[in-house]
Amino acid sequence: MPNIVVDGPPLDVDKKRVMAKEMTDSAAKAYGIPAAAFVVVIKENPPENVSVGGCLLCDARADLTD
Amino acid sequence: MPNIVVDGPPLDVDKKRVMAKEMTDSAAKAYGIPAAAFVVVIKENPPENVSVGGCLLCDARADLTD
Amino acid sequence: MPNIVVDGPPLDVDKKRVMAKEMTDSAAKAYGIPAAAFVVVIKENPPENVSVGGCLLCDARADLTD
Amino acid sequence: MPNIVVDGPPLDVDKKRVMAKEMTDSAAKAYGIPAAAFVVVIKENPPENVSVGGCLLCDARADLTD
Amino acid sequence: MPNIVVDGPPLDVDKKRVMAKEMTDSAAKAYGIPAAAFVVVIKENPPENVSVGGCLLCDARADLTD
Amino acid sequence: MPNIVVDGPPLDVDKKRVMAKEMTDSAAKAYGIPAAAFVVVIKENPPENVSVGGCLLCDARADLTD
Repeated sequence: MPNIVVDGPPLDVDKKRVMAKEMTDSAAKAYGIPAAAFVVVIKENPPENVSVGGCLLCDARADLTD
Repeated sequence: MPNIVVDGPPLDVDKKRVMAKEMTDSAAKAYGIPAAAFVVVIKENPPENVSVGGCLLCDARADLTD
Repeated sequence: MPNIVVDGPPLDVDKKRVMAKEMTDSAAKAYGIPAAAFVVVIKENPPENVSVGGCLLCDARADLTD
Repeated sequence: MPNIVVDGPPLDVDKKRVMAKEMTDSAAKAYGIPAAAFVVVIKENPPENVSVGGCLLCDARADLTD
Repeated sequence: MPNIVVDGPPLDVDKKRVMAKEMTDSAAKAYGIPAAAFVVVIKENPPENVSVGGCLLCDARADLTD
Repeated sequence: MPNIVVDGPPLDVDKKRVMAKEMTDSAAKAYGIPAAAFVVVIKENPPENVSVGGCLLCDARADLTD
């Protein structure tokens, strides 16, 4: 504790490594709690499981390539 | 923002498409915020990862077919 | 189960009542599971606890009224 | 409702079965609500999606075996 | 990590104390990870923010006392 | 989308402002998605609603001042 949960599309491990470190440092500074106490969980969601504005991302992308 | 997260069993993409649209429309009307601002995230959970009443769904289903 | 969690700004109870009913009906139809099994949880977040594009909502609103 | 969500590393089904039952019993006793109303959802996260102290679990484990 | 999140109605602190301890012990045993690594977060939701079967809990309770 | 949820103790608004901006920038860089698309939600939990290692934070703090 504290916990940080990031919900986004799939991400490669090098990006995850940097992002998790940066978010931990940012939160540790904000809360004044040692970085060791922070957990970051990255959730990767396929485009058919996310909608923005009522449109699934898998459909939005299909539209763009029509 | 706002965000809607639905946790349920696996669902086919046609059902996801309709549900995401309907939930977005319902929430946009309730909050008085344009639909474009709403994100829906659908989480699909396997039956061995969910329990109801302390019984995993994979076991409950096995019971039904005994 | 399934569960629906909505994270948004504060909302009056009449709006919550309609939205919870509509989302439950939409999800029950999508999953083919009776409405009685669905839980909706509405989380109300104050504007200083939410940022969009890196800007807290409480600051964004202040900007608009300058 | 109420709902219990557990985020952890992958777990075998026998452990899930016992943990879901024990957590349901504990919560039913605390809330004074019948166990049948409780849902437990277990989320399994791969080690490259979790960091503790700003270090991804997949890297922490690699360090240990160096 | 791992994290346990419990979403339910308001609960008094003595019940929280016992439930958090029991859930931690259950999870520590299941995962084979020391109890010190487990975080439990208890979320208390007012009855007008939760619906079961499409009916807000605040309305369901009103019905019962009619 | 993507969404970032931070669960921690209460935090003053100046700290929230900086943390939300830093996390958004970090995530925008990792995902290669414009910052405008990112939502950060900060959840503030009272110490009696969080346990670490099976001990509520309100009790842990009491111990420290004995």
